[in-house]
Amino acid sequence: MRAARREAVERTPVWFMRQAGRILPEYRAIREDHTLVEICRQPELCADVTLQPVDRLGVDAAILFSDIVTPLLGVGIDLKIVDGVGPVIAQPIASADDLERLRPLDPEHDLAYVLESIRILVERLDGVRPLIGFAGAPFTLAAYLVEGKPSRDFVKVKSMMFGAPELWHGLMDRLTNITIAYLMAQAKAGANALQLFDSWVGALAPGDYATFVQPYAQRIFAALAPLDVPCIHFGTGTATLLSLMKDDGAPIIGIDWHTPLDEAWRIVGHDKGVQGNLDPVTLFAPESYVRERVADVLRRAGGRAGHIFNLGHGLHPQTPVATVQRAVEYVHELSANADALAGVTA
Amino acid sequence: MRAARREAVERTPVWFMRQAGRILPEYRAIREDHTLVEICRQPELCADVTLQPVDRLGVDAAILFSDIVTPLLGVGIDLKIVDGVGPVIAQPIASADDLERLRPLDPEHDLAYVLESIRILVERLDGVRPLIGFAGAPFTLAAYLVEGKPSRDFVKVKSMMFGAPELWHGLMDRLTNITIAYLMAQAKAGANALQLFDSWVGALAPGDYATFVQPYAQRIFAALAPLDVPCIHFGTGTATLLSLMKDDGAPIIGIDWHTPLDEAWRIVGHDKGVQGNLDPVTLFAPESYVRERVADVLRRAGGRAGHIFNLGHGLHPQTPVATVQRAVEYVHELSANADALAGVTA
Repeated sequence: MRAARREAVERTPVWFMRQAGRILPEYRAIREDHTLVEICRQPELCADVTLQPVDRLGVDAAILFSDIVTPLLGVGIDLKIVDGVGPVIAQPIASADDLERLRPLDPEHDLAYVLESIRILVERLDGVRPLIGFAGAPFTLAAYLVEGKPSRDFVKVKSMMFGAPELWHGLMDRLTNITIAYLMAQAKAGANALQLFDSWVGALAPGDYATFVQPYAQRIFAALAPLDVPCIHFGTGTATLLSLMKDDGAPIIGIDWHTPLDEAWRIVGHDKGVQGNLDPVTLFAPESYVRERVADVLRRAGGRAGHIFNLGHGLHPQTPVATVQRAVEYVHELSANADALAGVTA
Repeated sequence: MRAARREAVERTPVWFMRQAGRILPEYRAIREDHTLVEICRQPELCADVTLQPVDRLGVDAAILFSDIVTPLLGVGIDLKIVDGVGPVIAQPIASADDLERLRPLDPEHDLAYVLESIRILVERLDGVRPLIGFAGAPFTLAAYLVEGKPSRDFVKVKSMMFGAPELWHGLMDRLTNITIAYLMAQAKAGANALQLFDSWVGALAPGDYATFVQPYAQRIFAALAPLDVPCIHFGTGTATLLSLMKDDGAPIIGIDWHTPLDEAWRIVGHDKGVQGNLDPVTLFAPESYVRERVADVLRRAGGRAGHIFNLGHGLHPQTPVATVQRAVEYVHELSANADALAGVTA
């Protein structure tokens, strides 16, 4: 939490996107009897799964176990999370009439189970480690709703943007309201920090981000600002969007692995915090190589206050758990000891 | 060809990646009776398919109809191009022993049909329009060979890079030799320009590109330099790689749609030509919007010599042909007439 506020810390904190989930055998054991959505809907079980990586990996934060599409389930969108595919929407959104299906979200009523999970987690974490809440960003939710399933090229989404901009803006407006309600409720339930995940926004050219997405990101962070809960704004493929995202209002920007961290921090400005940015596939490499790459990220962070160590994207399902544990140790060891860091050769 | 040599032109030339192929009904008619590989192996048919878009779309260059994996077929790799999936390799490469399967390519023997297609095309194009030859870059070929099929996260490829760098470099060395032999033979058969397609290289962080890929790209362009055939170096997701790629030796850099063209040209240097960079999904939009986006790219090119108009990636299969035709007209009209260009509002 101090790093998130750009205060000095004795060692760099670290957590990993997708730390809760498929990499852990104890999670896979639970999944034998429960779907992902069932886990989310059972607050005690959801809290167990959220805390598994905290115990196992030694990370410095818990992130709520949930899915980006949870608020869409909350407003009654008919969707399934298909293993190996992702969210599949029964009736994709294609017209103004379809927007009616996106009614406002009432989190205490529609997603009571999420808020209950957060309350349990805050109690179980007991102030020792923070809980990060999160939501999918409107563009990424819109991508699922319009494409109907995960996409590579986003033809339908961009066709709507370019060809039916009023419909697009109507969709983003509704999703923004849903996202704000959802994140505010998470903060009120006790989440210590919030991350907005715009997983697919890297599909956009900067001009299109500015026109079709940025106003909504700005509205979200403006709405959250009075809460005094640190917010992280993360997307992948954002190398050419970072110079815009810095003006969206989040005090911390998540950086993927394509932009070296020192360069990314220069782009977003040293008045922001940064989170990142090890290539997640690095964790399949031998430990000596992982140590070098961790050292490289820390050197680029340069000991500046406001760095939260993370990956540049989520952990891959097959990542060896032992290597993830080592990576956490390396972050702690090398960020606490300048001599040790200097001793790691690249 | 003058634009490729950064000489002044009266209007900006334009061609589109994947212009030959699935967007054209006359191509789909041929595909009812022939697989993609069968078309490539029949030089007259291959030439027909290569020329279809030149006639239909009015583009200023033909690009050889072929596939990135053609040279792998040439050296006897067991692979299939599966519709809707892409290349699937029967036995992916995982060990030093597997490298033996990548013997040197003898283009006149192994890929005689490609060279014959080129000779037919040069005759049929009769100097009115240039023929662009191409090859997949070693990284992209390696990605298919190691992953065994198209991948999103390149876990196996990067694991080999990071964990078995000698094996990786051995693989890249062999693929580089194959690529050089293939491109030199295309030039010798009459191709007027050559494009190196590194479709998947955007998966890499800049440091990894510099270590694991760049030396091989440099070797390719150094080998081709004496031929005096303009070379284009293209990849997607390369925003943070452009500042490295500019030193790889290609006189023209292909730019995807993530970096605005003026910024990209500044990064690669005005002593290079640039090719690009309309988002291919723009061509699903209404024609007035397409005209605005074409104008935007041309304005960013700023009338500077050395711009070849193209997309930032290949045409999507469902792109409306009429819009593609209009886009070609807009490029010609607006690049030839500064007043018309100034009159297009964004």
